[in-house]
Amino acid sequence: MEKRLKPMDAEQLREYGHKMVDFIADYYKTIENFPVLSQVEPGYLRNLLPDSAPNQPDSFQHVLDDIQAKILPGVTHWQSPNYFAYYPSNSSVAGFLGEMLSAGLNIVGFSWITSPAATELEMIVLDWLAKMLKLPEDFLSAGQGGGVIQGTASEAVLVVLLAARDKALRRVGKGALEKLVVYASDQTHSALQKACQIAGIHPENCRLLKANSSTNYALSPELLSETISQDLAIGLIPFFLCATVGTTSSTAVDPLLALGKFAKSNEMWFHVDAAYAGSACICPEFRHYIDGVEEADSFNMNAHKWFLTNFDCSALWVKDRSALVQALSTNPEFLKNKASQANMVVDYKDWQIPLGRRFRSLKLWMVLRLYGLENLQCYIRSHIKLAKHFEDLVAQDTRFEVVTPRIFSLVCFRLLPPPNDEYHGNKLNHELLDAVNSTGNVFVSHTVLSGKYILRFAVGAPLTEEKHVNAAWKVLQDKATALLGESLR
Amino acid sequence: MEKRLKPMDAEQLREYGHKMVDFIADYYKTIENFPVLSQVEPGYLRNLLPDSAPNQPDSFQHVLDDIQAKILPGVTHWQSPNYFAYYPSNSSVAGFLGEMLSAGLNIVGFSWITSPAATELEMIVLDWLAKMLKLPEDFLSAGQGGGVIQGTASEAVLVVLLAARDKALRRVGKGALEKLVVYASDQTHSALQKACQIAGIHPENCRLLKANSSTNYALSPELLSETISQDLAIGLIPFFLCATVGTTSSTAVDPLLALGKFAKSNEMWFHVDAAYAGSACICPEFRHYIDGVEEADSFNMNAHKWFLTNFDCSALWVKDRSALVQALSTNPEFLKNKASQANMVVDYKDWQIPLGRRFRSLKLWMVLRLYGLENLQCYIRSHIKLAKHFEDLVAQDTRFEVVTPRIFSLVCFRLLPPPNDEYHGNKLNHELLDAVNSTGNVFVSHTVLSGKYILRFAVGAPLTEEKHVNAAWKVLQDKATALLGESLR
Repeated sequence: MEKRLKPMDAEQLREYGHKMVDFIADYYKTIENFPVLSQVEPGYLRNLLPDSAPNQPDSFQHVLDDIQAKILPGVTHWQSPNYFAYYPSNSSVAGFLGEMLSAGLNIVGFSWITSPAATELEMIVLDWLAKMLKLPEDFLSAGQGGGVIQGTASEAVLVVLLAARDKALRRVGKGALEKLVVYASDQTHSALQKACQIAGIHPENCRLLKANSSTNYALSPELLSETISQDLAIGLIPFFLCATVGTTSSTAVDPLLALGKFAKSNEMWFHVDAAYAGSACICPEFRHYIDGVEEADSFNMNAHKWFLTNFDCSALWVKDRSALVQALSTNPEFLKNKASQANMVVDYKDWQIPLGRRFRSLKLWMVLRLYGLENLQCYIRSHIKLAKHFEDLVAQDTRFEVVTPRIFSLVCFRLLPPPNDEYHGNKLNHELLDAVNSTGNVFVSHTVLSGKYILRFAVGAPLTEEKHVNAAWKVLQDKATALLGESLR
Repeated sequence: MEKRLKPMDAEQLREYGHKMVDFIADYYKTIENFPVLSQVEPGYLRNLLPDSAPNQPDSFQHVLDDIQAKILPGVTHWQSPNYFAYYPSNSSVAGFLGEMLSAGLNIVGFSWITSPAATELEMIVLDWLAKMLKLPEDFLSAGQGGGVIQGTASEAVLVVLLAARDKALRRVGKGALEKLVVYASDQTHSALQKACQIAGIHPENCRLLKANSSTNYALSPELLSETISQDLAIGLIPFFLCATVGTTSSTAVDPLLALGKFAKSNEMWFHVDAAYAGSACICPEFRHYIDGVEEADSFNMNAHKWFLTNFDCSALWVKDRSALVQALSTNPEFLKNKASQANMVVDYKDWQIPLGRRFRSLKLWMVLRLYGLENLQCYIRSHIKLAKHFEDLVAQDTRFEVVTPRIFSLVCFRLLPPPNDEYHGNKLNHELLDAVNSTGNVFVSHTVLSGKYILRFAVGAPLTEEKHVNAAWKVLQDKATALLGESLR
């Protein structure tokens, strides 16, 4: 007779859970021993694992051994102090504990009734965070607005685009989908274009207006105004404007106040994407970057980037939650319940794409409680200080240039190209990137601005200290010396 | 001088992590002490928490105390053995450990390079699971198809609808969006209608065909065929058919083989939603319910429902991954890298709505390895056996009826209405539901089929044993006796 499987045995959870905690704590202790960018070749894992699932159970120790031997070599270590690529994806003790508890309770909080605490804690902590950011009161849950945790900024921009689309179509008639126009700078995250594609916005009506070095890659209100006028003249319907505070390529900051005025006078939905830089705005000295947010209909900030809340946790606020609900609500019989039918509660299923949702507010709540506002401000400032330090290092080496002014914790820089030879300059910087990343000692990513290939050095991993910034700079300098030496030969 | 915040201190993670593991293990030990459906009133938490985030850190013990005193009363305990509502949302030791590790590594696996192991393990375990389900080879990653983990079945149906929409528009011309028609039964999950709304499908072109008791609420191929013919005759373009194996209301099974033939002969995308019942199909005796899946373009099964993988983990397979990628791909400069540009790897960002994604394959891999196929089959069978037992109990009480034939682990039943009085019958069953759920001893949900208000008893929580089913039935009988007594008075 075989024993019946007990998949949720509390004592086994305790025993294995303790082992896994130790495994993860040990991982963090030794994280600098791994190449920060995984150096495996495509397909490496297929050769290490069997072709099919086992018939019989395997031991937990075997699985842990395989994680060490087979999985970790294929991991790019976003939590390494030597990680400076893209934007950070913070892990913290508080965020980790929140995730653990959320996985332990494993509730699915689509409607209030399916776990009232999940909905209510989310409303409360997003009010807390809105106050830390000094967002206008309209974004708080006490009025017509409120906050919601989305998975990512991509989902945030999609849901508000859908709300705006349906609101506009209610105004101008359902047949007008082909006439709706979206505006943003060409520095806006690709998520906007994807959202337009999903929402059926005519591809030619997604206007990504050119931003250049004259505005530090911010969207020009004059250019926006001209474009809107031209579109109106040919019968198109402007309905959505997306501004960014801290673009992905170079942390450009669009001028919210000027842009918001245009949006309002043209009855457009105004969305502000502060996915990365929003976190900095809890510090009084950086808050001015979102001045003008009072003009916005929606505001988004990723707590999972630079705010110590483990992925995923993208905070979205709207002033008019009914617009979201009108675009995204479903009300099948099998989900009806007294509290929802009586309109006494928020059902977050109607604020998002999926039905099911995890108890993500726990981790954000634990980050806010276990660290507190002042520590979080210091945390942001320490990274900005480190980025400034790196910027100074680059500026002192005449072979390099800082390409755009540093605003937050990202430095955009490059090796200067040979005179009048941008082509070889780009090739050189691409080679520098590859050379640096293949050492495994540092991970840096790149972008292209006005045709220039540029390296991005984003400070923001929780373990990063000055010594790591210095060591990274040393790797960059050494590889630059080697490359320049070769190119001279 | 203040001490610098160390948000990722390995020894603090160890210490607090162990405490949290014990907290969660203790929760499972005492889970039956809580009312399974939370009995709090709307707004309860607002009064228990402060208005704003703290300036200074709070202690971990305080937070744990608050979770116990303030959060848990507002939790509806999906993991309670007395949970029989909606469909289950399984937690297991293996699934929990996988979530913990995923949160610990905290990588963001949008492109292969951002953690090769995340992409490759996902491809491998979805191949494993496809083989366990005996899906056609076209769904495996070796050919043109492959599997991907979505958050939920809602996202799964949305991404394939978008792929199908754009594929159809490439064929018939971009201006034809208004002519595209979607087909499914009216028992299909509301996620389909929401996906249509998002994708800009004309609301009147989302055909939810009536299913009734004559087919046990399955979609009739004849009705489908007629409707398609009528639509073709007026110049509309059928492009998407969604069949369900195990509908949400009553586990109805649409006839895949017959439906698939119509889809194919009309060049429609054929999606099979087996979100709940797919898990059962790893047992040879239940596999026949997805016979005909070879006709499908896409197939979806939620490992987070009844397959011991903590939420969220929705497995989606497609035969033509390029259709997904064409609909959902973006390629901004800042994400370009050698492996992606050379087309040597899969970048899952192009198979889903969001950009970022968690390392969710870890938990599915750990479930498959720590339990093995045979245990998982036994697990499914044990729940189906318990549901059959409940069905027998209901059948023995002449005051009740089983409304639709039980197929998997859901029993649809009700108190028989007074003669010729469906209205009061519905009222009675609604009252029975409220009475039962307000005891806190059991949580059952409802649906409506052909105008009848019906109770749904879904077995599937990992801790549920026969004694819990018996106890639940006792509560139902007692409350029925009380209600019927009152109505006689």
